[in-house]
Amino acid sequence: MKIALLVEGSTKHHAREVWEVLSEFSQHECYHVGMRDEEGEETLTFVHTSMMAGILLNVKAVDFVIGGCGTGQGFLNGALAFPNVFCGLIYDPLEAWLFMQVNAGNCISLPMNRGWGLAGKEQIRLILNQAFSAPFGGGYPPERAGLIRSMHEILYNQSNASRKSFVEIIRLLDRDMLRTALNMQGVKSLIDTAPESAEKSIVLNLYSGQEAT
Amino acid sequence: MKIALLVEGSTKHHAREVWEVLSEFSQHECYHVGMRDEEGEETLTFVHTSMMAGILLNVKAVDFVIGGCGTGQGFLNGALAFPNVFCGLIYDPLEAWLFMQVNAGNCISLPMNRGWGLAGKEQIRLILNQAFSAPFGGGYPPERAGLIRSMHEILYNQSNASRKSFVEIIRLLDRDMLRTALNMQGVKSLIDTAPESAEKSIVLNLYSGQEAT
Amino acid sequence: MKIALLVEGSTKHHAREVWEVLSEFSQHECYHVGMRDEEGEETLTFVHTSMMAGILLNVKAVDFVIGGCGTGQGFLNGALAFPNVFCGLIYDPLEAWLFMQVNAGNCISLPMNRGWGLAGKEQIRLILNQAFSAPFGGGYPPERAGLIRSMHEILYNQSNASRKSFVEIIRLLDRDMLRTALNMQGVKSLIDTAPESAEKSIVLNLYSGQEAT
Amino acid sequence: MKIALLVEGSTKHHAREVWEVLSEFSQHECYHVGMRDEEGEETLTFVHTSMMAGILLNVKAVDFVIGGCGTGQGFLNGALAFPNVFCGLIYDPLEAWLFMQVNAGNCISLPMNRGWGLAGKEQIRLILNQAFSAPFGGGYPPERAGLIRSMHEILYNQSNASRKSFVEIIRLLDRDMLRTALNMQGVKSLIDTAPESAEKSIVLNLYSGQEAT
Repeated sequence: MKIALLVEGSTKHHAREVWEVLSEFSQHECYHVGMRDEEGEETLTFVHTSMMAGILLNVKAVDFVIGGCGTGQGFLNGALAFPNVFCGLIYDPLEAWLFMQVNAGNCISLPMNRGWGLAGKEQIRLILNQAFSAPFGGGYPPERAGLIRSMHEILYNQSNASRKSFVEIIRLLDRDMLRTALNMQGVKSLIDTAPESAEKSIVLNLYSGQEAT
Repeated sequence: MKIALLVEGSTKHHAREVWEVLSEFSQHECYHVGMRDEEGEETLTFVHTSMMAGILLNVKAVDFVIGGCGTGQGFLNGALAFPNVFCGLIYDPLEAWLFMQVNAGNCISLPMNRGWGLAGKEQIRLILNQAFSAPFGGGYPPERAGLIRSMHEILYNQSNASRKSFVEIIRLLDRDMLRTALNMQGVKSLIDTAPESAEKSIVLNLYSGQEAT
Repeated sequence: MKIALLVEGSTKHHAREVWEVLSEFSQHECYHVGMRDEEGEETLTFVHTSMMAGILLNVKAVDFVIGGCGTGQGFLNGALAFPNVFCGLIYDPLEAWLFMQVNAGNCISLPMNRGWGLAGKEQIRLILNQAFSAPFGGGYPPERAGLIRSMHEILYNQSNASRKSFVEIIRLLDRDMLRTALNMQGVKSLIDTAPESAEKSIVLNLYSGQEAT
Repeated sequence: MKIALLVEGSTKHHAREVWEVLSEFSQHECYHVGMRDEEGEETLTFVHTSMMAGILLNVKAVDFVIGGCGTGQGFLNGALAFPNVFCGLIYDPLEAWLFMQVNAGNCISLPMNRGWGLAGKEQIRLILNQAFSAPFGGGYPPERAGLIRSMHEILYNQSNASRKSFVEIIRLLDRDMLRTALNMQGVKSLIDTAPESAEKSIVLNLYSGQEAT
């Protein structure tokens, strides 16, 4: 699975530790796309990172996004502005386990400034372990698994139907924010790895200036 | 404030206690719209209740929705399919306090089968107390309040821009589910109280059969 | 490690699932000593189970006790009436991980009626996994590990010095409660496996009637 | 009620905020006895603060102690070395509410470096509000209140019977630690306010040198 980590400004002091944990999952291809808590980097807000989550998932540059903000609620609401995003607020390891089975999501939002004190790095490890080990989309509890899977399918269709297409949405985004997001370190090369598609073309056109950002 | 409670099937055994707590907030007009754990009522899923959340908020029949499901993640993703919905997953009292200040939401999703054991009713009371007492949309922490408010405004615009209009969406919803949702006890009379609007008209037309459900 | 599970009456409906999880740790010798949620068994309170925790640890019949009650606070206070007991209230997986490293405990108290809803069995699995996998008594965080180990030693000495000896305490316990506790299924045979000691002798004398219970 | 706040070294950066919140409870007499995060103060560990909790409660200088440490487990185990101490690990507001009703405690241990991030000060406010507003020792849930009160009484007697007397214990404490604890700012004047008793006399003798510390 291709996984992107997207950290915004108010939680950037946790970026290094989250990345260290994520890097240990060597069975996955992991990318550190958001802030790294380095000098000189441009400050991103949860609006930038949730926008980037929507872009990366819709151009299929990655399969899964790990984002968040202080409480995680802002990133969550931002990412769910896009079609093809199913995002959960993951506040503990069991929630990660449940979310992947019950909701079969492709995006998690971590409350990086709540509940992460002593041994916060280990908490991240527990959360990601559960997120990546739970039976994906299997439905839970077992006796309601079939119902849950069928509900999920209806939700999936309804959620996507209610949003404009990615190609429409990207033209409606705040242009300054979009430019900042697209200029983040590593984004362009990650988008280049995506399969060819109309969604990828329009994003690449934004880079080349054929679409005015 | 007009507040609707929307409980779905897997958590209906908590409906009575949540409603008892909500009823105590006599400064608000509260409506019990979803399941009541009564014999003979039709079973609703989180797809139905999140659909109803979107309808009630978009026709302005209520100002605020309290929903949820087993973990709260399904209702949350469902409600965020609609424009004009800002929903948080509220897993403890402090999160309610933060969500109302930081995110100025109009919808909360409660994980009604997680973390609610002994004294669950009191936990609900603590959560709703915090949700209704926190300085709404003030921004938090204070030193970042201005930035947070401006981010929230951008998020609000972006989220609404990315979704189709309510009038379009309601025609795309699963018709069986929509019919079940609209037939819930108390829904029609609640929608009647909403101010006149194109959104209200289309919903009333669905009732009168001028729009085929 | 020899591990005993001690479940009391208000949480007995969880006994089966906790035991199923504990049984999976085949590298340990596990004993189900408290309530099993079976018909006809005598009701135990947290006073009985905490008494039994003190007995089993002081006669060295087991190395580790898993107990609890509705919130876990009653069992915790009861078990800490005995010397040689270091007990933590373990409310989530990370706390299990921290407690074993920082406090090097031999007893955990689980809040079995709080926070254990949906997928409660999996939460127990996560908690026990962390309890049994964390570096025991290593100290945490690493940069304060030495200080923490030396504090722990002082605490250990102080805690034991402040309590009467086990041999004195057992004679002061409520006799009705003690009799009920000692007659629990499996207790006698478990105590028989303990190494010879003055503590074991006095408990065996209580069984044989040489000490009046 | 007379209440003492006792903060140790690893959590002293939270001392000011906890004290600010506690000070707002003007119906109580509150004392800031432990660390204040000020320059030049001697570093206290949880062994010192738990020792001081035992002293203040046993000489009846205060009615209630708020302590803690990184996880709260060390302070908890230390305080429970003393008779007449009933201590709970309080990790959220509901737990405060339950602990005071079910366990009728006189001491709470706060996990000050776990779970206290964004809006940690407000979390403390919620916890103390619940601790001080819940029906003290009433028993909960109501239908089991009588049983719980009788269990609590047995626990109380058993816990005190198993510990040596305060007068014995104080002579067994580590003398260096005891001296540091007694020399904490404000301790002497607080002990002076206690009613006359053998316990108070021995502590005052330690100050005057009639008991060698």
